[in-house]
Amino acid sequence: MVCGWSSIDCVALADNLVHNAQLSSPDGDIVASFDIDEAGHPVYSVTYKGLPIVKNCRLGLTAKEVAADSKYTMECSDIASVDETWQPVWGEYAEVRNNYNEMSAMFRCSSGLDFDVKVRVFDDGLGFRYELPLSHNNYFLSITGELTEFNFVDDYTVFAIPGDYDTDEFLYTTSPISDLDNRLPRSRHSESTLIDGLAVQTPVIMKHPEGKVYVNLHEAALVGYPAMALDVNPQQLSFVSHLTPGADGMKAYVQLPFCTPWRTMIISDDARDILASQLIYNLNEPSKIEDTSWIYPQKFIGVWWEMFVGYGSWAYSDDISTRPGVTDYASVKPSGRHAANNANVKKYIDFAAQSGIKSVLVEGWNEGWETWTEGRKNRHFLFDKAYPDFDVEELSRYAKERGVKLIMHHETSANAADYERQLDAAFDFMNKYGYDAVKTGYVGYIIPRGEHHSSQWMNDHYIEVVRRAAEHHIMVNSHEAVRPTGLMRTWPNWVAQESARGGEYEAMGGNPPEHTTLLPFTRLKGGPMDYTPGIMETDLASHGHGNSSHPGTTIARQLALYLTMPSPLQMACDRPDSYLKYADAFEFIKVVPVDWRTSVYLEAEPGDYITVARQDKNSEDWYIGAITDENSRTAKVKLDFLPKGKKYVATIYADGKDADYRTNPKSYNIYSKNVDCKSTLTLQLAPGGGAAVQLKAID
Amino acid sequence: MVCGWSSIDCVALADNLVHNAQLSSPDGDIVASFDIDEAGHPVYSVTYKGLPIVKNCRLGLTAKEVAADSKYTMECSDIASVDETWQPVWGEYAEVRNNYNEMSAMFRCSSGLDFDVKVRVFDDGLGFRYELPLSHNNYFLSITGELTEFNFVDDYTVFAIPGDYDTDEFLYTTSPISDLDNRLPRSRHSESTLIDGLAVQTPVIMKHPEGKVYVNLHEAALVGYPAMALDVNPQQLSFVSHLTPGADGMKAYVQLPFCTPWRTMIISDDARDILASQLIYNLNEPSKIEDTSWIYPQKFIGVWWEMFVGYGSWAYSDDISTRPGVTDYASVKPSGRHAANNANVKKYIDFAAQSGIKSVLVEGWNEGWETWTEGRKNRHFLFDKAYPDFDVEELSRYAKERGVKLIMHHETSANAADYERQLDAAFDFMNKYGYDAVKTGYVGYIIPRGEHHSSQWMNDHYIEVVRRAAEHHIMVNSHEAVRPTGLMRTWPNWVAQESARGGEYEAMGGNPPEHTTLLPFTRLKGGPMDYTPGIMETDLASHGHGNSSHPGTTIARQLALYLTMPSPLQMACDRPDSYLKYADAFEFIKVVPVDWRTSVYLEAEPGDYITVARQDKNSEDWYIGAITDENSRTAKVKLDFLPKGKKYVATIYADGKDADYRTNPKSYNIYSKNVDCKSTLTLQLAPGGGAAVQLKAID
Repeated sequence: MVCGWSSIDCVALADNLVHNAQLSSPDGDIVASFDIDEAGHPVYSVTYKGLPIVKNCRLGLTAKEVAADSKYTMECSDIASVDETWQPVWGEYAEVRNNYNEMSAMFRCSSGLDFDVKVRVFDDGLGFRYELPLSHNNYFLSITGELTEFNFVDDYTVFAIPGDYDTDEFLYTTSPISDLDNRLPRSRHSESTLIDGLAVQTPVIMKHPEGKVYVNLHEAALVGYPAMALDVNPQQLSFVSHLTPGADGMKAYVQLPFCTPWRTMIISDDARDILASQLIYNLNEPSKIEDTSWIYPQKFIGVWWEMFVGYGSWAYSDDISTRPGVTDYASVKPSGRHAANNANVKKYIDFAAQSGIKSVLVEGWNEGWETWTEGRKNRHFLFDKAYPDFDVEELSRYAKERGVKLIMHHETSANAADYERQLDAAFDFMNKYGYDAVKTGYVGYIIPRGEHHSSQWMNDHYIEVVRRAAEHHIMVNSHEAVRPTGLMRTWPNWVAQESARGGEYEAMGGNPPEHTTLLPFTRLKGGPMDYTPGIMETDLASHGHGNSSHPGTTIARQLALYLTMPSPLQMACDRPDSYLKYADAFEFIKVVPVDWRTSVYLEAEPGDYITVARQDKNSEDWYIGAITDENSRTAKVKLDFLPKGKKYVATIYADGKDADYRTNPKSYNIYSKNVDCKSTLTLQLAPGGGAAVQLKAID
Repeated sequence: MVCGWSSIDCVALADNLVHNAQLSSPDGDIVASFDIDEAGHPVYSVTYKGLPIVKNCRLGLTAKEVAADSKYTMECSDIASVDETWQPVWGEYAEVRNNYNEMSAMFRCSSGLDFDVKVRVFDDGLGFRYELPLSHNNYFLSITGELTEFNFVDDYTVFAIPGDYDTDEFLYTTSPISDLDNRLPRSRHSESTLIDGLAVQTPVIMKHPEGKVYVNLHEAALVGYPAMALDVNPQQLSFVSHLTPGADGMKAYVQLPFCTPWRTMIISDDARDILASQLIYNLNEPSKIEDTSWIYPQKFIGVWWEMFVGYGSWAYSDDISTRPGVTDYASVKPSGRHAANNANVKKYIDFAAQSGIKSVLVEGWNEGWETWTEGRKNRHFLFDKAYPDFDVEELSRYAKERGVKLIMHHETSANAADYERQLDAAFDFMNKYGYDAVKTGYVGYIIPRGEHHSSQWMNDHYIEVVRRAAEHHIMVNSHEAVRPTGLMRTWPNWVAQESARGGEYEAMGGNPPEHTTLLPFTRLKGGPMDYTPGIMETDLASHGHGNSSHPGTTIARQLALYLTMPSPLQMACDRPDSYLKYADAFEFIKVVPVDWRTSVYLEAEPGDYITVARQDKNSEDWYIGAITDENSRTAKVKLDFLPKGKKYVATIYADGKDADYRTNPKSYNIYSKNVDCKSTLTLQLAPGGGAAVQLKAID
């Protein structure tokens, strides 16, 4: 239905100008209104079921070339309505509905920056973006800032990580907006550039003080622009866009006409709707890859966790005078601890073949690891040169014979410039040896120096890598890249990212159980995460290599994460030996799918718990995952989402009665029962625990 | 001959330490001495035939990681002597003698930066470099500066251009060192970042106040390091190394062991020796390219000068909203002035074929020229996408049929980052369509932003481009790149650079005649220049397109430049129509070689005149070129360099009697006579004029 806004939702002024133009969601629950305030500034407000969410929020951009003009007028387009479905290449749903009302508010002024705000209001939230028309003398703009505000009416509880130009590997802080300045820790780590003052990152999830509504703030389709963090004014309950600067301090260089990324608010009074929302994907462009047949969801193991727990090293030697491409590594004394050696990699290939795991990631295979975290150089790695004890030809052959794929690893040490220098050679090398997927890494401070992980140039870089990878039929799993914004819809070969504090931190101090009850409300709204679940040997010290980090999880919870942290690329992170030790639990990892026909969020509360059921895309089987925070919990799971009359065998991987992530993480029970849509499963979750269920259809 | 220094040339102290270690040139004329001064600083001095040139010059580097330690000790290595010859792929000489004495002075201190100075003293000058050993705890250094001084004993006359991080396209200033601050203009242009304070660039040529000696200061083998300019202290008659900073302000990041480029002084009391010197090539590494058979010297014409004089444009349209790779240029309204169109390019191909000119450069062939000087974007060009009216497939076929090569043009707008992004695609495109050579361009401020044309990262970039080009069997002629430092020996496919104010400025205000009497003493010591001589139509206004620039040359001088500005890649820059108009003069351009068996500098004075004779590498023929400054001159050229008994027909292209670059540049005479080694040619050079002579051997 297309309806003119002018007769219904706004106050008409002279000369086509309007005040207070409103746009509603298809179900009418969400209303976004646009206006000019008394100072002449463009502003917007949002209500949900009549409840004011944000009010009198400034809109606009600043640019070096134009004056800040305080007197704007507004015109509005007609309202357009869209209701369509599309089929993702992979994901939580085989079909996604894209249903919204859209309009443009055109803000004009005498000497400042003219801009349109295009807004789309969905039943589960809204997105708006700035569109800079080619209507004045500036064909090019140097963007110095963005004025977008989110002025909350109430003092929401925020679950947030600190604003940082270079990393998002933080734990979440829970705080009222008004107290954020006191509660938000600001601790730096290896590639950290904390934003001055009080700032948080998106995606951020917020809860109304009386629980009336949940709001996720983020952005969609981050293309040709810096990522947005949010400066916080705790007294005003206000968040303001904070764009990451480039090397010369400028936020963005743009050629007109230009559209910014969408600024998004996912809104619901039911936390489960936040998890189910596909709004951010809907605001991204359809796939640019026509033939996607070479893209496949998969599970993988890797020569990786063993380095974290201390068995081996990425580097071939201890000789820190070595240089990739210069040193003859065959003449260097090996340390004897190099994990990516032929014999070890073959063990992983054998284990993958036996387990039906598709692929093996091998880290530390290439020249350069001896001084890989050193920023004072301009070449860190070669991406087509293996260490002497990694025979890529032989290993590729060995893997192929066993129906296993090797996954490439391109750690760049954040030297994006040199990675681009080698990109074609790197991808040609992958094609030559049959690699279909690459895990990229950006640990460290960015080269080109002065750029940031989330600055405009780097955002172009990530997409360039994915685009070129697509040309080579290569899937990309980028670590330490900018937080995702749904671009996987446009580039479905971008199968996963890290871009948050991942499972690896279980070996570096541990992740509190709460962490994975928050990531699906925050980080995952932008796209799948390579979180790397699957720890079985939760006693890291038992490996005998000096790592005494205590993971914040039970074993059963690790299985549940395959459901609550959906991704088309899922690692089974632990060592094969650990899986042999817990072979019955590992059975779940072997069978759990990574691609879904549909998903049903059954219970959810940010920071507390999530229970989700998903149907395998390629069978009638369903799977359930449930996790809790540090508190034990009983999840009563009604199976009424199952088709009527159909019988299932439920295999339940549950915490043991005495399980506790602090004291007894390895206690679990596995049991089966027959169920149908009238059944209810009662899942007892230990503190820091979880449950995983396979519902196998009986033919 | 190898001799120990210790018994001869230094003062021995306790514990192998020495003072005043001296190293002489093979002929004994040049003596470099190294010492520790009273403050404990490493210093050096140089004498020539007993005349002190520079004295008590500090040596050293500073780094972020180490303290500035003022108390050094010195040890010295034995002296090694080398006398060898090598064969350049192309150049002024078919064989180059490399004859020097070498030693290392090892400077050590308690807590500062240990370094060696390796010095090589040749008969025509010396070079020294810093070698940072792997002898302490710093495997990586952040170089903050270099202390190298050149403290002249006398107030030399300097011919210099201002220090600038981004350009060397300046005219020369002639001044005593002591008055440089008053005389050196500091005018910026498009990609200029003038150094604060008083600074000059290398190569710089200097003349003793009484004419006793000439000194050229420069550097050799600029690899992995920023270029060096020279801060000037006019009162002290002193020059101090000034390294170009990178984007973060740091000068260089180096991994130890590391060698800096060589700091070079070419020294002689005969100005002709400065021109003949191959010292800078000798200090570079031998060719890294094993099979050089695909590298060939050549002359070329180009769709280029016509844009300067106003016939056409680089851009296809006037639509500045166009974007390479985004816009469908076929649907854009063409301006009608696009020079690189099929019909026009075919005219050039035809003319090249008729004239025996090997190649045709075509600029403006690819998408992006509408806003190519705009810095506010991150993609300026596509390097594999032609404008709609440039049919690369058809033009390649057309050229090939006629035995003509097309030369590729990669203007990058100084967006080196995006050039690297596209480099493989660009070179693949060239290979596909049979291009053997590329002219690269770096007009504008560098992207990655904050880098400079002469900063470490960019110096890595240029070599990376040349290295990758070599893999594709592509020759490179880089414009606006860092000044050359003899790296063409190592990468002989790097056939030429611009890196100075070139012939194009004749269409932008003109080059005073003096300019080309200086470039061979300065810029050309680093490598060949694509100066683009060959202007026949000196009256630019006569083209009727509004360019009224007055070139600082006669026609005969333009011919002489093919000898005095030697390069394996020589343009005939003017339009075919101009060559048809002056067909008899053009005959010289058609026949003059671009590669030489040997060269004899007959007369030379920086800023005044140069006369040189060269023998064709591939025949018995000789060629002579003579130029003067703004003053007329008579060059009496004894032909005693010719082999005894051999007869030659001399064809002389001389200024007319009434010629004058200001008032009558087109007046010339062409005449012939028989000559032999006993003959003397008297060449009358007009103000701003020149003469070119072909000496064709009579069989």
